[in-house]
Amino acid sequence: MNAYGGIETGGSKWECAVGNGPDDLRATETIATTTPSETIERAVAFFEREGPVEAIGIGSFGPIDQKLASPTWGHITNTPKPGWARTDVGQEIRRRLSVQVAFDTDVNAAALGEHRWGAAQGLDTFCYITVGTGIGGGGMAGGMLLHGLLHPEFGHMRIPHDRERDPFGGICPYHGDCLEGLASGEAIRRRWGHAGQQLDDDAVWELEAEYLALALVNLACMVVPQRIVIGGGVAKQPALLPQVRRRLTELLAGYLRVPELTEPDAIDRYVVPPRLGDQAGVVGALELARVAGHAGHERASVDEIEAGRVPGGQTRARS
Amino acid sequence: MNAYGGIETGGSKWECAVGNGPDDLRATETIATTTPSETIERAVAFFEREGPVEAIGIGSFGPIDQKLASPTWGHITNTPKPGWARTDVGQEIRRRLSVQVAFDTDVNAAALGEHRWGAAQGLDTFCYITVGTGIGGGGMAGGMLLHGLLHPEFGHMRIPHDRERDPFGGICPYHGDCLEGLASGEAIRRRWGHAGQQLDDDAVWELEAEYLALALVNLACMVVPQRIVIGGGVAKQPALLPQVRRRLTELLAGYLRVPELTEPDAIDRYVVPPRLGDQAGVVGALELARVAGHAGHERASVDEIEAGRVPGGQTRARS
Repeated sequence: MNAYGGIETGGSKWECAVGNGPDDLRATETIATTTPSETIERAVAFFEREGPVEAIGIGSFGPIDQKLASPTWGHITNTPKPGWARTDVGQEIRRRLSVQVAFDTDVNAAALGEHRWGAAQGLDTFCYITVGTGIGGGGMAGGMLLHGLLHPEFGHMRIPHDRERDPFGGICPYHGDCLEGLASGEAIRRRWGHAGQQLDDDAVWELEAEYLALALVNLACMVVPQRIVIGGGVAKQPALLPQVRRRLTELLAGYLRVPELTEPDAIDRYVVPPRLGDQAGVVGALELARVAGHAGHERASVDEIEAGRVPGGQTRARS
Repeated sequence: MNAYGGIETGGSKWECAVGNGPDDLRATETIATTTPSETIERAVAFFEREGPVEAIGIGSFGPIDQKLASPTWGHITNTPKPGWARTDVGQEIRRRLSVQVAFDTDVNAAALGEHRWGAAQGLDTFCYITVGTGIGGGGMAGGMLLHGLLHPEFGHMRIPHDRERDPFGGICPYHGDCLEGLASGEAIRRRWGHAGQQLDDDAVWELEAEYLALALVNLACMVVPQRIVIGGGVAKQPALLPQVRRRLTELLAGYLRVPELTEPDAIDRYVVPPRLGDQAGVVGALELARVAGHAGHERASVDEIEAGRVPGGQTRARS
């Protein structure tokens, strides 16, 4: 059986892998994110050494350009990360390795991994929200990865901000107190003076749960996911998820009357951590390579590809 | 050429039609919404007189049950409208007329109409938000009508509510100051003491534009639509849409850096009224009948059906 290549490009490190999934990883390497040319060089060397691969999937930090028709397809666009704005990642790797490249956000790659092997198996409409230094989002609607005008930006939704309870103004340079501005790991650090791992004050996690629950209400009303997966470093705080579930239930107030939300303990199955943990992104990138490995099936849903009803497909990068 | 049947079931009237679209309407009838049995009886009589039809599409006020596997598929569920909670509409009409019935929300039907003949032609990811007595939402992601766990409920998203600027507490019996609680026609009437048509105070429409723009920010960050169609009675106020566009641009603050949002006047093409006007729902119901007229193609996207690549398809009622 042939293998695929996967890269999760993060702001501090790139995770590279060759294989077919979490149980068939033939080679992996972690590369520190330095300059674009050095980092890409090391990734190329990894695949030259461990390949050949059928195709490479890249799940990238963003914002990114994933429009197939765009001359800057495969680029990281207006990131604030020094040296990385307007960097060609996808086209460069395709050229250097002469291999088909599928390019999406790190969150959509992780969502795809969870769909194939993890907490979102069998679902066609779900959200994956990652709460780390920043807040990102992805998932599927109707079996297709969420993209439209561009990739989702869950972190920049606006939510109620009670300034009496939380006078902190938010850290988003664009929006101030959008979700990321209020609830990201960096917002926690700047509001409370310490990183989340060092904080066990109840008030910290109650406030964090409040903001995340409001975000989940909005996802539930707009994308109507069958499940919501919450990943990222901040979400690892053990006290957080139970509080998010409780507040989400209170905020929905029984309005969305479906058994998946209203049956006893249903909420514990509705809001879940990623089953693949930190590996979701890089193994999801392998899956991204697989489902996008054959052109000309842009309309095929991931389920159709997985069911073998079509030979492969672009997982929606056609807008 | 054969014809389809369409019904838009509203809280005050049902619009019924036989035909193939806005330019091929062979018969129409408006029926007052009285009791379920009387209203359904009159609709059945219309189709018996004007039919036969290939299939009937129903775009219904909600909440509704549209899960094909559910014993209460085709029912209106927990509506507050007296006499209509837990009413079987879809199954009853299927039985009475012995015809295939497709059942979705009024907003998804209108969205489908706009996709086929109106303001959303050629798009695969768009939102349709209707601002009337209540606020509803629908649209498509990846060529599939938006449904997951259930149909979307845009009206119940939470948005920032500045109580100094607007001390009104909101009217939603479930959530108080959710979007519908603050910005629906009924909220306007109760906040200001008059219906929107009678109000031309700038403060009314500035506040309304603020809330709708916040809602559109959230749609843009989550569903990432290629366009947003705003329908409904409140949205007919001429001053409103230009203000919504202006505030949306300000609130996004250039973060979503795509030409569809950032080019001069692009926002005028991004946020638009429905092109089919009040007819979108009933002609959309005809289209709903057509695309769902053949079983067994649940995964087919609407574009595939329109392009003739598959003979028809359930437009996603399979969750």
